[in-house]
Amino acid sequence: LCEKLETNDTAYAVSVGVFVYLPFCPGFFYLSFYLSACPCLPVCLYQGSKLWGGRFVGDTDPIMEKFNASIAYDKRMWDADIRGSKAYAKALEKAKLVTAEEKDYILHGMDQIHDEWAKGVFEVKPGDEDIHTANERRLKELIGEPAGKLHTGRSRNDQVVTDMRLWLRDAISILKGNALQLITTMVERAAIDVLFPGYTHMQRAQPIRWSHWILSHAVALSRDVEQLQEINRRVNVLPLGSGAIAGTPFNIDREMLRQELAFDDISINSMDATGQRDFIAEFLFWASLCLTHLSKMAEDLMLYSTKEFSFLTLSDAYSTGSSLMPQKKNADSLELIRSKAGRVFGRCAGFLMTLKGLPSTYNKDLQEDKEAMFDCFDTVHAVLQVTTGVVSTLKINPSVMEAALSPDMLATDLAYYLVRKGVPFRDAHGISGKAVFLAESKSIPLNQLTVEDLRTASPLFSSDVSAVWDYSSSVEQYSAPGGTAKSSVAAQVEHMRTWLKKQVQ
Amino acid sequence: LCEKLETNDTAYAVSVGVFVYLPFCPGFFYLSFYLSACPCLPVCLYQGSKLWGGRFVGDTDPIMEKFNASIAYDKRMWDADIRGSKAYAKALEKAKLVTAEEKDYILHGMDQIHDEWAKGVFEVKPGDEDIHTANERRLKELIGEPAGKLHTGRSRNDQVVTDMRLWLRDAISILKGNALQLITTMVERAAIDVLFPGYTHMQRAQPIRWSHWILSHAVALSRDVEQLQEINRRVNVLPLGSGAIAGTPFNIDREMLRQELAFDDISINSMDATGQRDFIAEFLFWASLCLTHLSKMAEDLMLYSTKEFSFLTLSDAYSTGSSLMPQKKNADSLELIRSKAGRVFGRCAGFLMTLKGLPSTYNKDLQEDKEAMFDCFDTVHAVLQVTTGVVSTLKINPSVMEAALSPDMLATDLAYYLVRKGVPFRDAHGISGKAVFLAESKSIPLNQLTVEDLRTASPLFSSDVSAVWDYSSSVEQYSAPGGTAKSSVAAQVEHMRTWLKKQVQ
Amino acid sequence: LCEKLETNDTAYAVSVGVFVYLPFCPGFFYLSFYLSACPCLPVCLYQGSKLWGGRFVGDTDPIMEKFNASIAYDKRMWDADIRGSKAYAKALEKAKLVTAEEKDYILHGMDQIHDEWAKGVFEVKPGDEDIHTANERRLKELIGEPAGKLHTGRSRNDQVVTDMRLWLRDAISILKGNALQLITTMVERAAIDVLFPGYTHMQRAQPIRWSHWILSHAVALSRDVEQLQEINRRVNVLPLGSGAIAGTPFNIDREMLRQELAFDDISINSMDATGQRDFIAEFLFWASLCLTHLSKMAEDLMLYSTKEFSFLTLSDAYSTGSSLMPQKKNADSLELIRSKAGRVFGRCAGFLMTLKGLPSTYNKDLQEDKEAMFDCFDTVHAVLQVTTGVVSTLKINPSVMEAALSPDMLATDLAYYLVRKGVPFRDAHGISGKAVFLAESKSIPLNQLTVEDLRTASPLFSSDVSAVWDYSSSVEQYSAPGGTAKSSVAAQVEHMRTWLKKQVQ
Amino acid sequence: LCEKLETNDTAYAVSVGVFVYLPFCPGFFYLSFYLSACPCLPVCLYQGSKLWGGRFVGDTDPIMEKFNASIAYDKRMWDADIRGSKAYAKALEKAKLVTAEEKDYILHGMDQIHDEWAKGVFEVKPGDEDIHTANERRLKELIGEPAGKLHTGRSRNDQVVTDMRLWLRDAISILKGNALQLITTMVERAAIDVLFPGYTHMQRAQPIRWSHWILSHAVALSRDVEQLQEINRRVNVLPLGSGAIAGTPFNIDREMLRQELAFDDISINSMDATGQRDFIAEFLFWASLCLTHLSKMAEDLMLYSTKEFSFLTLSDAYSTGSSLMPQKKNADSLELIRSKAGRVFGRCAGFLMTLKGLPSTYNKDLQEDKEAMFDCFDTVHAVLQVTTGVVSTLKINPSVMEAALSPDMLATDLAYYLVRKGVPFRDAHGISGKAVFLAESKSIPLNQLTVEDLRTASPLFSSDVSAVWDYSSSVEQYSAPGGTAKSSVAAQVEHMRTWLKKQVQ
Repeated sequence: LCEKLETNDTAYAVSVGVFVYLPFCPGFFYLSFYLSACPCLPVCLYQGSKLWGGRFVGDTDPIMEKFNASIAYDKRMWDADIRGSKAYAKALEKAKLVTAEEKDYILHGMDQIHDEWAKGVFEVKPGDEDIHTANERRLKELIGEPAGKLHTGRSRNDQVVTDMRLWLRDAISILKGNALQLITTMVERAAIDVLFPGYTHMQRAQPIRWSHWILSHAVALSRDVEQLQEINRRVNVLPLGSGAIAGTPFNIDREMLRQELAFDDISINSMDATGQRDFIAEFLFWASLCLTHLSKMAEDLMLYSTKEFSFLTLSDAYSTGSSLMPQKKNADSLELIRSKAGRVFGRCAGFLMTLKGLPSTYNKDLQEDKEAMFDCFDTVHAVLQVTTGVVSTLKINPSVMEAALSPDMLATDLAYYLVRKGVPFRDAHGISGKAVFLAESKSIPLNQLTVEDLRTASPLFSSDVSAVWDYSSSVEQYSAPGGTAKSSVAAQVEHMRTWLKKQVQ
Repeated sequence: LCEKLETNDTAYAVSVGVFVYLPFCPGFFYLSFYLSACPCLPVCLYQGSKLWGGRFVGDTDPIMEKFNASIAYDKRMWDADIRGSKAYAKALEKAKLVTAEEKDYILHGMDQIHDEWAKGVFEVKPGDEDIHTANERRLKELIGEPAGKLHTGRSRNDQVVTDMRLWLRDAISILKGNALQLITTMVERAAIDVLFPGYTHMQRAQPIRWSHWILSHAVALSRDVEQLQEINRRVNVLPLGSGAIAGTPFNIDREMLRQELAFDDISINSMDATGQRDFIAEFLFWASLCLTHLSKMAEDLMLYSTKEFSFLTLSDAYSTGSSLMPQKKNADSLELIRSKAGRVFGRCAGFLMTLKGLPSTYNKDLQEDKEAMFDCFDTVHAVLQVTTGVVSTLKINPSVMEAALSPDMLATDLAYYLVRKGVPFRDAHGISGKAVFLAESKSIPLNQLTVEDLRTASPLFSSDVSAVWDYSSSVEQYSAPGGTAKSSVAAQVEHMRTWLKKQVQ
Repeated sequence: LCEKLETNDTAYAVSVGVFVYLPFCPGFFYLSFYLSACPCLPVCLYQGSKLWGGRFVGDTDPIMEKFNASIAYDKRMWDADIRGSKAYAKALEKAKLVTAEEKDYILHGMDQIHDEWAKGVFEVKPGDEDIHTANERRLKELIGEPAGKLHTGRSRNDQVVTDMRLWLRDAISILKGNALQLITTMVERAAIDVLFPGYTHMQRAQPIRWSHWILSHAVALSRDVEQLQEINRRVNVLPLGSGAIAGTPFNIDREMLRQELAFDDISINSMDATGQRDFIAEFLFWASLCLTHLSKMAEDLMLYSTKEFSFLTLSDAYSTGSSLMPQKKNADSLELIRSKAGRVFGRCAGFLMTLKGLPSTYNKDLQEDKEAMFDCFDTVHAVLQVTTGVVSTLKINPSVMEAALSPDMLATDLAYYLVRKGVPFRDAHGISGKAVFLAESKSIPLNQLTVEDLRTASPLFSSDVSAVWDYSSSVEQYSAPGGTAKSSVAAQVEHMRTWLKKQVQ
Repeated sequence: LCEKLETNDTAYAVSVGVFVYLPFCPGFFYLSFYLSACPCLPVCLYQGSKLWGGRFVGDTDPIMEKFNASIAYDKRMWDADIRGSKAYAKALEKAKLVTAEEKDYILHGMDQIHDEWAKGVFEVKPGDEDIHTANERRLKELIGEPAGKLHTGRSRNDQVVTDMRLWLRDAISILKGNALQLITTMVERAAIDVLFPGYTHMQRAQPIRWSHWILSHAVALSRDVEQLQEINRRVNVLPLGSGAIAGTPFNIDREMLRQELAFDDISINSMDATGQRDFIAEFLFWASLCLTHLSKMAEDLMLYSTKEFSFLTLSDAYSTGSSLMPQKKNADSLELIRSKAGRVFGRCAGFLMTLKGLPSTYNKDLQEDKEAMFDCFDTVHAVLQVTTGVVSTLKINPSVMEAALSPDMLATDLAYYLVRKGVPFRDAHGISGKAVFLAESKSIPLNQLTVEDLRTASPLFSSDVSAVWDYSSSVEQYSAPGGTAKSSVAAQVEHMRTWLKKQVQ
């Protein structure tokens, strides 16, 4: 009669927990528990109509119903679902499974549903377990019988993966735009010409250009864009017409579906088409690698915006304060950017773990794909925009940056001085190391060592060594492709500009 | 007018963005971009009052504002936040930082806010970036000036982690109840006494009891409960009174706070207290291991409910059908249970990656803690309840189970027969293996080999070997603790019942 | 004498450590500790020559020395390191930093070192912290002074990443070969034409062809091969000539280096070139996705080789037995294949976590890249070969497979029967569901329902419904691209053969 | 002759493999391949004796053999395996399955094997697929027939997990010692009393004590130690006597085994006992969280040892240099420590993914447990020791630390000044924020504002405000438990000392 119970009741019952010992009577124990929980539930709960109810007699546990439903998040694909169904209706007509008139009813009904979603008035009803069920249920309400023909030869297995591919294709296009915007901003900000310390191991290494630094991050992002386009090629493949597992009967013209929905290709094998989520896994990993890149840049920027470095100042628009300490100006935007690499990779890790060891074709486990996809899109979408804002508005402090250059950063140049006089580099490196040690012992900067001092390390030093201590001429040595010399950085800027132009054509 | 200016608008602007080359003018470029997007932006956007606005002059980028805000999810901790603030108000009075009257105003105001949340009428306003800001903002509206004293000597750094610990403590209590309910159900279902094949490597190994199987999963869950209680001890520690980093001044009595909020302990070091999220990481991993256990049971049940095994039938309440294939009855509940292990571990992986390499104390990256915590709680909460439903309603098919026992599963017994006649086990194993091979060659079951057949493998076989081929007496050999003999399983049931009683005391 | 003083000794000293309170004397405390552990330590430990010792005065802690060293695993790149150095020697000559004679000495010395490694006689010495140090140290021993010129303008930062790219390029080529071999084997095994149940949700869904099933896995692997080639394009980029961070001085001709080492491209920015490990991360993820595919196929095969399914028998060559149960034949190979997806993804997860939040350019954290790369290569290399062996030797049992087809799997066909008579599919699905329910109630197979029985569900059923119950004609309906009809599967085989031919050209 | 036939040979054959089309002949194709690779393969390869060979006729593929074998790493458990077998021999005697004399032979033989391993002369032979097989094979060689009785009623399923628990118990004890050593060192280094900036969000927040900082990390590690002990309780449970799945027959006295092997408890259910690896998963996660803690401290130390912060100097013993830049002194030790959190968590992630969805009891997938366990032990073992070395030898630079304190860090104190004059904190915070802004506008430090300047923000400022600008008195405010006042830090030191004493009792 009333064998069902509802989430909150159980939760409540459990939380007051009467763990009474009822020996050998699990059935009775369980039944009595339900009866006391809710006597009238079955009357009111299942007015919706599931797409698969025919052979079932028992009711679904309402907690299970909620656990099973995906409408709360997959409704986000309403537009893709409608587009897919409209194309399918046309294919049904071509296969003579609906008449031209029925097709028009369906298309028109779908347009109405589109309007309802677009205006935010579509009403999700109990029983609408997913977006496909919701749209078809609504279509039935709007146009009656012809709606019942729409699913002929189609399965939710091929329908859902078609929707996802349509949705993700658009999402990728938006992310590509965001990434290009950020790269463009970076390339513009490379216009500033100032020297500052380049770090390895977080220790001052060699003088470099600011532009060289910012381009290093732009180049990484340009790889992300290229990878995204490769993934897009694998996303943009039509699975519709694969049915549940065996394929589609009834002369459904898959080539026509492909053209209607502007896919590049048709899936090769129906079992693979409905059961694989590689394109999601690839996208989640892409998001992880892209945000790992931005976590790297954020880390640099956080370091540079500490009081101790003071190389740059973040705009107030991307900083926040403390509820306790009035003087604080925190680079929250950068910390958030850094943190999201973890979030997004967690989605990737979780989804791969879910995929591991699943048998072929559709298993309900695959339902984990959508929230992961949406969350990664939303996160990368926001991060790219915020990063663009941060980069475009930060102020660099050239004088502090230049003041941070110190003569020890030219120790390699000192070694090169000797190399140019014929000393093998390995020996020159050792001699320069001795000079560094000598300067440290004397507590003076490296360039304050006299020629006599230097000669204790090598007799080849002479007064021309003073030319070494010039940061500007130091950087100009690195003129090979990829280096920090002015000409080399200009070539990198040019390279990136050309690349950007190619992307938006 | 402008009040609906949001992410999407800007996003749109970005996504249509033309990547024009604007040399040396990033600032202008950016400004014009915003102006074109919404001319009235600076005027209308910041009517809310942040807790830290004093020294700031620039506006926050609206995308950044949304990116930074946690109110959308941390409002779930409204009750914990109010409890914490009420206790803090009392401590402030004791420290003479508010008067008794002011304290009463605060308490009363907080009770009103509690009511608003409980009734679902609390209105989140622009600028309410988190639950702490929202509650304090509302308090100000309700009681005026005394509200401004509430945050004295407190920081959001110690406030938020206090809220989380209060919230998680309650959540753990609910999950413990859910887990005990499931274990109870399993122990009850162990009442059925039927033999069936035990599998290793998914291959038939030895006859076992059904009850032995179900208890193996109950035992795993009992470890989860014990671990959860250990974690709870580390959750139930008061951080309030740690301030932002240095601690709390003003004679705030932390011991009194501890008692008010029913914590077991007080945090030892303020920098650790505000910057560590170990209790979250531990909880996320706990959820992962617990659901990995359930993924194992779900896998067994899925296997057993295939047509090919047919050991059991799931209730319709936990099955779903196919939109295409009318005969399908899918064990969706089990697949969902299995899938959630990945989801939850993804949260754990993501959060640990976010934590990696963070410097000491509070960094905004830690904001990733809350969504992970909520999602893992919700998921485990649902999974435990659905599993309880599945286990309590599934029907086992004893005749099919017993029919699946096959004589080859007694090959070990055949070897033991020889061991009892003095053959070293290693040799007996080899002889029994030969018998298996012989039976396979003859395409007959192992127990159809004649004594003569067996004697080709060993002369020690005689007619008493027929006693080996009895499944019931085979299982009774395993009477040592943990084994599958009737007495041993009964002892396991008894052990679990005693353990369960101890848990709810 | 002291040469075997190692970690273990010190470890022992630490583990017996008494936790005495030595106020204000950490230095003394530490010193005495070492002295007691091994009095001759400072004398005997550092006879090797590090590449960077000049300015250092203190000794390295031996545990730290071992912790820091990578030679134990990176020696595997000896060949790549030698190739890189030979090319660099030529570039040095072109830049007039070594004479033609010196270059020849270096090349000749390097060839000798190559021989030593190839013959397994190269002796790694204390102080050889990595393969670069080891090879340069040996070169010095062999040719003296000119060896000291080899590193001019080069850094281990660009050297190591050049080595890795050379190594991985070869590894990818081997894996591509392994994958093509496996796909070829699968395509060949698709030659067998037998029907068996297709499963969704591990429940019988529709009849399919065995060949359709095996092709579904071949198609997934073909995507892996395509992705691997895309990754290879990003691997095959020359970083040499990037120096430590700023680039290379001295007119090193990077284009010449590219040609010498057969790279496709030159890295764009030196900071990015030395600090990024995207190509490793991509490779690790590729390995994870590829093995996730194989874990899916392994799961299917394990299911099919249970006693209960008995669709196929694994070759003894890929099975193992039990030390206890003589009858057991376990599909260990398949379990190992399935397990490796986790192992490899763990490497990916670990490396991404290591990368997260690192600042720009080279940090020692990047040293985690190599073991992950080697382990993933070795694992995928073994898995692909074992899978090829398993697939090529398994025996399928056509009669069991066909006997597993059951009439309920044609319930969709029953609905299609009605669709062909004009019933909307949604209604037909419901009617067919009722028929399934009726047959279940009567405990008879679906095809044993009389026409009268069927008419209780719909009056449209007539005697021609008997034509539905034919598995062979059922599968032939699915003749659209990707389906399970004979023609469609043949087209898939043809597609794969063409694709394979293209890969090996 | 054939003894070096190995993976590589086959691999080579595969990699040159021509992808010829051999229709319908996969068997022949495969056979001929092996024949051509090594004609004498079947003759020479399987001289070893597997523990399960009885019913098998085909040979194992040599790649599969290597893929399947675990001896390369599980030999590390030789001692645990011997201890387990010796205890089991005693139980066999008690159960009258071996005579007292046979038991003595076994014990004596096992002692000999122990000696061989200890001396490094134990010879692993082909066919020794794991440590259990190797030891039993050797026992047979040494004592003959009685060796064949040792495995009676035991399975490798309960044997291997017993070995692992014995091994891990010892490993945990070592790690606990390492961690206590590190905590002790930290507590000692807290003896230095110096003030320096406390940071939140990497921005200067409030003045704190150095000792407060170092204790924050010691406290985190003390939680790790407590967790490790909890895990140890779950590790220290005897599984031996669980057999393969059903339990043990023959009156094996499990309680006696428990006492012999000094376990705390006996496993409850044999299926759970042999199939669960929770204790490994817990250990891997423990390692991850522990190293995440150390990654945090390493990050702080790296920051503090940049040129820009210059708060401390690492000992040369824990630094390395650059092969290119003579002046570099890199904190490689800290970078390695930071990097290992990723490595170790990767192991945890990989193993959990492997566990996900496995069916009950032993599956070969579980073999992934050992390498993960060993690697995490080795890594944490090294990291804890290196960190101890780093912490005990680093030199802090008190004058630089104190010079880094800046007046803006007392802005909270300025607000508190007003609070003490009755201003609600929220207002005081705003006023202090205005003062900060004023000072920034004037480009002067906050404490250089005149009383008149301050009065523009609030009339309550008077000349006594000058008392605010004292860092020493500022920190003394934080005297509540956990704060940075001298007394509070002293209490924390005392707490830790007491805790340490309790640990080593």
